[in-house]
Amino acid sequence: MKILVVNVNTTESMTASIASQARAAASPGTEIVGLTPEFGAESVEGNFESYLAAIAVMDRVITYDGEYDAVIQAGFGEHGKEGLQELLDVPVLDITEAAAHVASMLGRKFSVVTSLDRTVPLIEERLLVAGLNAHCASVRASGLGVLDVERSKDRAVAAIVEQAVRAIQEDHAEVIVLGCGGMAGLDVAVREATTAPVVDGVASAVQLAESLVALSLTTSKLRTYASPGAKRVLSWPLSEHLS
Amino acid sequence: MKILVVNVNTTESMTASIASQARAAASPGTEIVGLTPEFGAESVEGNFESYLAAIAVMDRVITYDGEYDAVIQAGFGEHGKEGLQELLDVPVLDITEAAAHVASMLGRKFSVVTSLDRTVPLIEERLLVAGLNAHCASVRASGLGVLDVERSKDRAVAAIVEQAVRAIQEDHAEVIVLGCGGMAGLDVAVREATTAPVVDGVASAVQLAESLVALSLTTSKLRTYASPGAKRVLSWPLSEHLS
Amino acid sequence: MKILVVNVNTTESMTASIASQARAAASPGTEIVGLTPEFGAESVEGNFESYLAAIAVMDRVITYDGEYDAVIQAGFGEHGKEGLQELLDVPVLDITEAAAHVASMLGRKFSVVTSLDRTVPLIEERLLVAGLNAHCASVRASGLGVLDVERSKDRAVAAIVEQAVRAIQEDHAEVIVLGCGGMAGLDVAVREATTAPVVDGVASAVQLAESLVALSLTTSKLRTYASPGAKRVLSWPLSEHLS
Amino acid sequence: MKILVVNVNTTESMTASIASQARAAASPGTEIVGLTPEFGAESVEGNFESYLAAIAVMDRVITYDGEYDAVIQAGFGEHGKEGLQELLDVPVLDITEAAAHVASMLGRKFSVVTSLDRTVPLIEERLLVAGLNAHCASVRASGLGVLDVERSKDRAVAAIVEQAVRAIQEDHAEVIVLGCGGMAGLDVAVREATTAPVVDGVASAVQLAESLVALSLTTSKLRTYASPGAKRVLSWPLSEHLS
Amino acid sequence: MKILVVNVNTTESMTASIASQARAAASPGTEIVGLTPEFGAESVEGNFESYLAAIAVMDRVITYDGEYDAVIQAGFGEHGKEGLQELLDVPVLDITEAAAHVASMLGRKFSVVTSLDRTVPLIEERLLVAGLNAHCASVRASGLGVLDVERSKDRAVAAIVEQAVRAIQEDHAEVIVLGCGGMAGLDVAVREATTAPVVDGVASAVQLAESLVALSLTTSKLRTYASPGAKRVLSWPLSEHLS
Amino acid sequence: MKILVVNVNTTESMTASIASQARAAASPGTEIVGLTPEFGAESVEGNFESYLAAIAVMDRVITYDGEYDAVIQAGFGEHGKEGLQELLDVPVLDITEAAAHVASMLGRKFSVVTSLDRTVPLIEERLLVAGLNAHCASVRASGLGVLDVERSKDRAVAAIVEQAVRAIQEDHAEVIVLGCGGMAGLDVAVREATTAPVVDGVASAVQLAESLVALSLTTSKLRTYASPGAKRVLSWPLSEHLS
Repeated sequence: MKILVVNVNTTESMTASIASQARAAASPGTEIVGLTPEFGAESVEGNFESYLAAIAVMDRVITYDGEYDAVIQAGFGEHGKEGLQELLDVPVLDITEAAAHVASMLGRKFSVVTSLDRTVPLIEERLLVAGLNAHCASVRASGLGVLDVERSKDRAVAAIVEQAVRAIQEDHAEVIVLGCGGMAGLDVAVREATTAPVVDGVASAVQLAESLVALSLTTSKLRTYASPGAKRVLSWPLSEHLS
Repeated sequence: MKILVVNVNTTESMTASIASQARAAASPGTEIVGLTPEFGAESVEGNFESYLAAIAVMDRVITYDGEYDAVIQAGFGEHGKEGLQELLDVPVLDITEAAAHVASMLGRKFSVVTSLDRTVPLIEERLLVAGLNAHCASVRASGLGVLDVERSKDRAVAAIVEQAVRAIQEDHAEVIVLGCGGMAGLDVAVREATTAPVVDGVASAVQLAESLVALSLTTSKLRTYASPGAKRVLSWPLSEHLS
Repeated sequence: MKILVVNVNTTESMTASIASQARAAASPGTEIVGLTPEFGAESVEGNFESYLAAIAVMDRVITYDGEYDAVIQAGFGEHGKEGLQELLDVPVLDITEAAAHVASMLGRKFSVVTSLDRTVPLIEERLLVAGLNAHCASVRASGLGVLDVERSKDRAVAAIVEQAVRAIQEDHAEVIVLGCGGMAGLDVAVREATTAPVVDGVASAVQLAESLVALSLTTSKLRTYASPGAKRVLSWPLSEHLS
Repeated sequence: MKILVVNVNTTESMTASIASQARAAASPGTEIVGLTPEFGAESVEGNFESYLAAIAVMDRVITYDGEYDAVIQAGFGEHGKEGLQELLDVPVLDITEAAAHVASMLGRKFSVVTSLDRTVPLIEERLLVAGLNAHCASVRASGLGVLDVERSKDRAVAAIVEQAVRAIQEDHAEVIVLGCGGMAGLDVAVREATTAPVVDGVASAVQLAESLVALSLTTSKLRTYASPGAKRVLSWPLSEHLS
Repeated sequence: MKILVVNVNTTESMTASIASQARAAASPGTEIVGLTPEFGAESVEGNFESYLAAIAVMDRVITYDGEYDAVIQAGFGEHGKEGLQELLDVPVLDITEAAAHVASMLGRKFSVVTSLDRTVPLIEERLLVAGLNAHCASVRASGLGVLDVERSKDRAVAAIVEQAVRAIQEDHAEVIVLGCGGMAGLDVAVREATTAPVVDGVASAVQLAESLVALSLTTSKLRTYASPGAKRVLSWPLSEHLS
Repeated sequence: MKILVVNVNTTESMTASIASQARAAASPGTEIVGLTPEFGAESVEGNFESYLAAIAVMDRVITYDGEYDAVIQAGFGEHGKEGLQELLDVPVLDITEAAAHVASMLGRKFSVVTSLDRTVPLIEERLLVAGLNAHCASVRASGLGVLDVERSKDRAVAAIVEQAVRAIQEDHAEVIVLGCGGMAGLDVAVREATTAPVVDGVASAVQLAESLVALSLTTSKLRTYASPGAKRVLSWPLSEHLS
């Protein structure tokens, strides 16, 4: 089985880190291919950057030369998953939804701890649209930017644990979700500090992607995610027209 | 990995059928153990029977002599999962939630096709409590009792397909969930007749249970599903006191 | 008129206390019969114990030898009412819903003060399922176990008042509901300390049961609460098979 | 015990009919006083008329010369109950909420059958504001005006039964609520035709009012329904200034 | 274009202040006519006063002798708009809804800062009924009565800013709505102190009324706001019968 | 005042038609500039095309050389408005929200009639995210593609009227919203055929944009729509890197 794991920003080291986390979660026999978009922001922390990432991820997947069994969009709270679902016939997972599904199976309420405060509304909106917000106790910001998390893991753990503890005590969270692709690999440290189950979106998405493939299930093409109609699309794929 | 799959009714042939479906969905190396409650109804189609099943399932699991890595409660729309989660340290899946999680990853709206009309409210209520109702387009009854489904697979497929088609056309469902443990194995026929992805709860739960175990995640013990306090419980486990 | 008031735990002294509260609230001519389950936990403070109580209450009512006009399940936030409604032709009240109905008539928002923190989710879930959560400002825990409340009324009043005051000031509650069967009789003290109307579930249920009987209204048998179909139910009623 | 039952329109014969229904539902020893507003519409079937009725009902109660234990606003889906709750120290019931409370105790979903289509939104809005809409399956119009119902009981029963049957079959209602003060007394005929429990708002409100009085409970004065502050109110009560 | 701006209380100086604010917001060529009800409270801070104002506003508009293109009900959180919509053919705006519409276009969440705590529930209810509550972060009380706001603008600004800052920091509001007709003109000072956009209901309603008139759009008469049927209405309009 | 009206597809004739509709709705002194994206689909009827349009619209606005007072994204149900709000300091309107705001002021429930069935979920999702879905009775598809609507206005009117009538009769809509940028100008014909107010998104957005400018209000920069942080964004703006 081969799974494409697509980073949403253009920072290659984050793609490597995400792919590494994905490999650690994959079953034997599953190949993980990490992909980096050809254009877009070095970190995604708002709507403009997220919309640009949405298109950059679709562009990267559509121009990927090879076969694969599933695709994971590895940005937390980002736009675009529905577009990928239209374009592809294989299952598409995004890490926000994957993490929320897994967290819901482990406790009655989960809280997300993310990077900057300005990304909180994006995550809340994704959960609302996915119909997965009812058991979300809160989305809390650690105050660290995506690249800060990447740079200093120790500082990140401390900031995440602080918010996780407040989520448990004040918001009645029973499960913690790491709400940023750059937090991949920090789950063990946060779990030890809080005693709560800690869910990583990338790892969750890999396991769920394997499950869908094993069940021979893929995206419904009946209505919302039907393939786009045949029509003129100027300059698409964009990366092939960029100089 | 060993997974206990517990039927909710006392009909042994249904346990066999469910266990067989679970085995077909399991990964190599996963052992499936089918269990039948020691007391309760031969089919579960209402609240009284479902509450009795809830306790009978807990009783059966608690008196099971052996190790296991996860437990699946194989009744659709039934009470009791939360009790199991309190009693156990391993992950607990119930097939209603497992099917809803999987269906949500495949399309924007799913419909459940179940047995009798009187079980529709139970399923709606379980989805509400699980926070998984927002993308449920409808729960529809085929009009066949649980044991009727078991007895005549052809008749069952015809009745399910009729409601599935109406769910797609009238309720805008994009995915169909088979809403009865006894429908295990009918997914292929319904998929062929409707072109929609068709989700089986038992198969879904097996894959998701394997995922949670692979991710080393289990039920949070922080609040709702904390182990019961030490106290006097008369005649428990019940099966050990039944003559 | 004769009303059965069924305790959910197996502590006889609590049955006596609940029955006494019920008698104080009953109209002249109403006979109250207090019943204790034949099996189950000495106090109910979680899902496992609550599910067991659900079945134990149904068992106790079904084996009661005599006529009656209504049944009250006297556990706050407990499972099982729907099963009783299927089994019986007379009105069934549970004290969570009864208290919420009465509280809704007295103010715009009510808060529940219950025993342990772990029972809060059960109460929230019952109100959600009953469609009575929209005007619930909060469910707060006093931190006292069910039997602690029973043992020290003064300490219980102090702990309840502390949370009630916070519910009024922080959550904008206008009415306080005592969220534990063992709190029967504490309403006057809490009312005096807070100036809010204080609603006791047992007393409310008695009055509402009398009202339904007076109106010649009983449970609809059209769909959800139709009598169970004729089928084989192993070892039921359980108490008749317990050695 | 003395209960004021206030009609919302100025048609004296409807006041008599409502008071008669109230007396039939009252316990021995309860005195029912029917009151008619001093101004307003001969029937209330829309927002303008309902707002005018709200004030006319408050005016009528405030100018009533005598003691009483509870007040019932006997218009279905009408504005104004909250104002009465501010002005009075005794319990205030309105028949929409009273019927919804009683219906909720009898089945999982109820439907309201009212007079004209244009009153449907008023009822839906009242249930939403009261937090009692979650278990309302539908509000359906019989197509008969308030005074038509009053004039021809047989025709009214036929029109109500037609909608009640559709509510049961299409909307999954298990209980029928008569959604018009003028339908008082038709419950038995509708019950016989549908086999569903049929709830009359006036009768329900009488029983619930008696319950609140018996429980020594009345409206919270903590926030929403606190008594109006002392201030200049021009021409109030209006009826004392009308020539 | 001529717009009637109707105060909800009987304090003439407030009518003048509201009309002045409306004039400042109006486009060249728009004439503003301020109207004061003939009866009712000198300030509206609760349900009784608000219901009385609802009728007094309708009465004042209906007895206005002249042509006009739109009507604005200039009370925040007050009852009655729907009645005006039935009675009139021109567009009707109320300042609560107008402010919420405008605030929703400026940020993801808005908070309302109003006068007394007891008016908070009225505003919450109006937003709920209008379907505009989803993006309302909170409704907060400044603690000043309507006439206090009118009397001391400096004190009012300080009290509003205090709550606005808390709304931004604690409730994640991004836009502040001034929730009291008497706060007209304070928007600039609050904006400077908070850096948030500050929305005034009267100004918003004037602009939106002009927009509806420019678009040749007016209230639908299809169902909810159809004109009242022809019927006997005692003593209406009330002001013509008051001595 | 100058307003940019940005088409979401790359069909120049549709830009012209939309700009023309905008000009008809604008006040004297308002200049309308129609803009066409540099890349993307000739019509937008699904998530992939809509996400691409989101970025193409931002790209087009950001590379526009000139001053302006407001921007309108003229695609119904499309992604991207939040990104524009981050990038710009002037007010941003999208026609879905503008139409929903205006429709909400005209009646209690509105229905949207759009192009293809597959665009229905996009519109429902936009209304949900905007918090404007509570009064949306339904979103219905006419069955005509975006360019079909553009080509045959008569056929479009007939198909829209058919669905509008059903929305009024079956879904209780009181106002009709034209849910496709290409339907600009059809409002009069649909209004005449249905007697309902018919709302055009482009015209509504123009009027609302003028209102926000007149009120000196613009997007809050406090949290969700704060300007993007300074960071490396590869190949942005895309149109400047396209060969």
